[in-house]
Amino acid sequence: MIFASDNWAGAADEIAASLQKHSSGFSPAYGASDLDKHLEKRFNDLFEKEVAVFFVGTGTAANSLALSAVNRPGGFVMCHREAHLIEDECGAPEFFTSGARLAPIDGPRGKINPDHLLRALKRIDPEFVHHGQPMAVSVTQATESGTVYSGDELAVIAEHAHAFGLPLHMDGARFANAMVHLGVSPAEMTWKKGVDVLSFGGTKNGCWCAEALVFFDPDRAKQLPFIRKRAAQLFSKTRFIAAQFHAYLDDDLWIRLATHANAMATRLAEALESTDDVSVAWECQSNELFVTMPKALADSLRERGARFYPWPIPDDFVSKMTDDEGLYRLVTSFATKPEDIDQFMALMQ
Amino acid sequence: MIFASDNWAGAADEIAASLQKHSSGFSPAYGASDLDKHLEKRFNDLFEKEVAVFFVGTGTAANSLALSAVNRPGGFVMCHREAHLIEDECGAPEFFTSGARLAPIDGPRGKINPDHLLRALKRIDPEFVHHGQPMAVSVTQATESGTVYSGDELAVIAEHAHAFGLPLHMDGARFANAMVHLGVSPAEMTWKKGVDVLSFGGTKNGCWCAEALVFFDPDRAKQLPFIRKRAAQLFSKTRFIAAQFHAYLDDDLWIRLATHANAMATRLAEALESTDDVSVAWECQSNELFVTMPKALADSLRERGARFYPWPIPDDFVSKMTDDEGLYRLVTSFATKPEDIDQFMALMQ
Amino acid sequence: MIFASDNWAGAADEIAASLQKHSSGFSPAYGASDLDKHLEKRFNDLFEKEVAVFFVGTGTAANSLALSAVNRPGGFVMCHREAHLIEDECGAPEFFTSGARLAPIDGPRGKINPDHLLRALKRIDPEFVHHGQPMAVSVTQATESGTVYSGDELAVIAEHAHAFGLPLHMDGARFANAMVHLGVSPAEMTWKKGVDVLSFGGTKNGCWCAEALVFFDPDRAKQLPFIRKRAAQLFSKTRFIAAQFHAYLDDDLWIRLATHANAMATRLAEALESTDDVSVAWECQSNELFVTMPKALADSLRERGARFYPWPIPDDFVSKMTDDEGLYRLVTSFATKPEDIDQFMALMQ
Amino acid sequence: MIFASDNWAGAADEIAASLQKHSSGFSPAYGASDLDKHLEKRFNDLFEKEVAVFFVGTGTAANSLALSAVNRPGGFVMCHREAHLIEDECGAPEFFTSGARLAPIDGPRGKINPDHLLRALKRIDPEFVHHGQPMAVSVTQATESGTVYSGDELAVIAEHAHAFGLPLHMDGARFANAMVHLGVSPAEMTWKKGVDVLSFGGTKNGCWCAEALVFFDPDRAKQLPFIRKRAAQLFSKTRFIAAQFHAYLDDDLWIRLATHANAMATRLAEALESTDDVSVAWECQSNELFVTMPKALADSLRERGARFYPWPIPDDFVSKMTDDEGLYRLVTSFATKPEDIDQFMALMQ
Repeated sequence: MIFASDNWAGAADEIAASLQKHSSGFSPAYGASDLDKHLEKRFNDLFEKEVAVFFVGTGTAANSLALSAVNRPGGFVMCHREAHLIEDECGAPEFFTSGARLAPIDGPRGKINPDHLLRALKRIDPEFVHHGQPMAVSVTQATESGTVYSGDELAVIAEHAHAFGLPLHMDGARFANAMVHLGVSPAEMTWKKGVDVLSFGGTKNGCWCAEALVFFDPDRAKQLPFIRKRAAQLFSKTRFIAAQFHAYLDDDLWIRLATHANAMATRLAEALESTDDVSVAWECQSNELFVTMPKALADSLRERGARFYPWPIPDDFVSKMTDDEGLYRLVTSFATKPEDIDQFMALMQ
Repeated sequence: MIFASDNWAGAADEIAASLQKHSSGFSPAYGASDLDKHLEKRFNDLFEKEVAVFFVGTGTAANSLALSAVNRPGGFVMCHREAHLIEDECGAPEFFTSGARLAPIDGPRGKINPDHLLRALKRIDPEFVHHGQPMAVSVTQATESGTVYSGDELAVIAEHAHAFGLPLHMDGARFANAMVHLGVSPAEMTWKKGVDVLSFGGTKNGCWCAEALVFFDPDRAKQLPFIRKRAAQLFSKTRFIAAQFHAYLDDDLWIRLATHANAMATRLAEALESTDDVSVAWECQSNELFVTMPKALADSLRERGARFYPWPIPDDFVSKMTDDEGLYRLVTSFATKPEDIDQFMALMQ
Repeated sequence: MIFASDNWAGAADEIAASLQKHSSGFSPAYGASDLDKHLEKRFNDLFEKEVAVFFVGTGTAANSLALSAVNRPGGFVMCHREAHLIEDECGAPEFFTSGARLAPIDGPRGKINPDHLLRALKRIDPEFVHHGQPMAVSVTQATESGTVYSGDELAVIAEHAHAFGLPLHMDGARFANAMVHLGVSPAEMTWKKGVDVLSFGGTKNGCWCAEALVFFDPDRAKQLPFIRKRAAQLFSKTRFIAAQFHAYLDDDLWIRLATHANAMATRLAEALESTDDVSVAWECQSNELFVTMPKALADSLRERGARFYPWPIPDDFVSKMTDDEGLYRLVTSFATKPEDIDQFMALMQ
Repeated sequence: MIFASDNWAGAADEIAASLQKHSSGFSPAYGASDLDKHLEKRFNDLFEKEVAVFFVGTGTAANSLALSAVNRPGGFVMCHREAHLIEDECGAPEFFTSGARLAPIDGPRGKINPDHLLRALKRIDPEFVHHGQPMAVSVTQATESGTVYSGDELAVIAEHAHAFGLPLHMDGARFANAMVHLGVSPAEMTWKKGVDVLSFGGTKNGCWCAEALVFFDPDRAKQLPFIRKRAAQLFSKTRFIAAQFHAYLDDDLWIRLATHANAMATRLAEALESTDDVSVAWECQSNELFVTMPKALADSLRERGARFYPWPIPDDFVSKMTDDEGLYRLVTSFATKPEDIDQFMALMQ
């Protein structure tokens, strides 16, 4: 009954097997092995386009290096107020960019309101040096609230960003979950909608530690080999990341894992909706489900072994809840089993 | 016949097995799992002392965060001119310290000459703000030249550093190889000789990706949890590092792996010494062997499948060599087999 | 009719004369001259306490180095949403701290609401590494809205900051104007209320370029000589700053200059209040006056030579204004003459 | 008898008078005044070319921002081993570039040996990410040893830099002294020889605090307004710098001041050469004279009021000196009077 986070799971069997398989034998270090090169090319197929791809160890690294690569002096990034960038990376984006700012944009349920974005962009006077200058817009797909931008929504945000000369970055820590929800291809959810740089996450969806930084215009990535190495993110035995991505992408494993995780969240949502005490707060579009329930119930569930976290209540939600109620996040993953849900529901009886 | 680097090897069987074993099941993320906590405590036993330990992904990260933790404004680190810090980390130490300088100290075969260090330390006027201020001394054990500081040598360097109020950092990317050579305990090669901060490397000696940053005075490490997270080095599924260290330290695997690697280097050295064309340049004290041979021979060996790199010729060595000769580095590892050496020697016939 | 900013003025006569007087003769560079040392001591008298003082060239430098000195990894500063730090320093505080964040706190008319501050401080879990850690609270005195914190208000904010172990920084770019308004001593407006670090501004009040960074606990400033030099803020001919402060502090010139500036703002406020078209938006407590007037009138005044800037309308103010009206900032200074005001009022007829 | 440094002098009379003259009246801040704009244009005439010019407060700032503007990830700058950048800026270049390295090149008397530079450049493998990448070459004109690169020498260094795609930066803290020595125009000593970016110093030659960062290709400077502001180097009352440069450049004041300083150094050199005890160590080509004399004599001179500093003895010079002798630096300036020299020589009797 672990719904604390998708990173409480370990590695998918296929990933572990691939690591074991590639553990013996010698091959060139620092990304020069055949396996590394094969996987880098694999991303071209994946995105139906020549891309520049860089394997790194953490999602925070992928995000921070992405922003570092497009930063300008006095630069700021426009992203959602509750973005992982802002809330959960301990200032890494600011540190790796040597001081860029994360400028929060509002919007319901983790998604940037494109009108707010446009207004913020229009307010900037490019000649007014004192306030600094925007350098990127960043969206999270799926968002921290478990919602997913539609293709049209992404296209509008990209259009606004590009109109002001800014690249659009996508934090895809839960890329697969969003893609499965939309039922589109990787290309359709990224560059075809105007995304310029992507943090492609594998860790939350069944890898141990596999993240890829993808530039859809390889010219923009020319300094990345140095940026990555200087950031201590060029692993010596890089094939341990490549081996993970090999299994991850092979035979659509990643799609299957995300499909399962999303299905488990839906199943959990439906089960909880049928109870009297728990309400789904808003539609779950990926593998993160947000529910309201009496605090006493939540405490009791957790005492009996369930694991999940409370979540800050959005301003527009406060009036819908009583003081005795709390908002909670339940996260499923590739490793969630139907039995985990059944067991959890049994606690409710 | 791969003698290019010890990071051309993959993972030792026991390491791979441990990763597989710990891949299933849920456990808290970001270092909070029982396995993580168990392994952190394991380092206390290993060093016979309460230490603060932080797992990170690369040796460059361990070194850079160590220096970041002890840095001061305008700070510089005294280290050997050929240290990995200076030569091979693409400015990561400078980047993570926001601009500290690496001040090179000379000394033969990768080892700091303690008299040079002392002279450099004495030259610094702590009131003279223009030149900055020293913030640490760093040694590499084993060195980039395959040599190993004796316990006494370490103690002298530590004494000099401490006399000027500076911590002593040890880059232990090849810690195990050095320790096996000296035949001492981890404690005897570190804090008992005055080492304050250690980059304890597992990757080159059989792990996929496992490095530990060890502070022998835990008080000095109070900011490290934030420094590590801000550096994008707090992995979400940290147990994948813990699982590696679990197998690595269990039943002295790490000692056995390093003992093997060193033995292979010795065997290779002895075999090569018996030839007419190849000379061991200086005593191999770990798993890195440096030899001189005719460039034509080296080229021929590499054409026939051997992998090893040329090495810059030290100033005091130039006169001993002809223009037709080159200096070459041959590195063995846990994965080197006697047959690799036999096969390599056969090419010489 | 220049009400654009107090930095559109040049230097007060006494400041210019002092620079001329000290321009000849030799004296040690880099802060070692008798004049420098004399002035540094002068700050002890000024604040009735032994302080550590560092002269720098710009207010942005003073603020940035103050925060740099107290920063921690993943650190963030709590300051008012409209603080100069956030709005007008092009990311310098972030840059000099290598990535600290400026966390905005709300409050009316430029002043931090202490309850909001307390709530924000309480929300922080010191064990939760992901969000970073607070490292300081910063207030602006006088604020960007021309208001002034009372002594009691400062004491409450200091109490909250200190309860969470945080130093309180004061951006005193308009220190003198605030002090004159409150009618208190420098000590009473700073350390006696709990201020730990002060950016003491001279430039806006009659100097060319003279700012002082003051630490009320000298122990906290031990690294400042290196921080200042590394920041390119240690001027070689520092006596040119000392000479400005010499005249500035001598014979209470600074008090007289600020008293005049404030009086001119009051005079302007009273004159404008007597008109039909212009309303004082909120009480002017220093030398910055905020007024509402028809946009057409503002345009007309500016066409006829008056200089002043529009200002963003606070959320709680929008309902009080029509679409045809604007909010404007009018700033007086030591150099404002009664005739400037008369001339400006004449344009209104 | 002050020969300690040219920054022990104050400001030239004309500079002080200009500051006084421009101290009254209002004008736009932050570089927008007519005087600022006039002076910026004045630099186009000065260099017979459209340049981008940015006024800053210190030479360290000019150098650091110059390098910051051309930096690349993992970047290093090739400069002379004894350059001010390395020896006397407390890590500011490293800090402002967020960690670029200063790679020392040897050469006699403060001048880069172009063959050493070329060898160092050739050794770099642009594909080898581990060592970082070069990002600029920097020369000091006049050097820290009082010598001056000839036009041909500059051209060779520029050719080498450009052949490897690197810009050439000139630290011109003593630009005027070098130019007067060579008898060439500003253009002839800079872009006509291949210099791309110049730190044009006014402070050591009679200003209080006036340095200009000059880009000979304005396109390269597009980010500089943000870089300068973020570096806390955009002064609010910038006309105080413009007013200094106004007097400095007007009517060739700067040439006259430097001519005088150099003549005083020559006069001092000739007087000292005529004594038995003091020898000119190498030809003085600017306003810095290096001499050898018995340490006892130096001590005695200083006890009797003379001010000058000892200097590290170059390796190739050690054999020419006895243990009782020291190497000393004597610096003249616009403020040095013939009487100062006469008085100093009188001490020798």
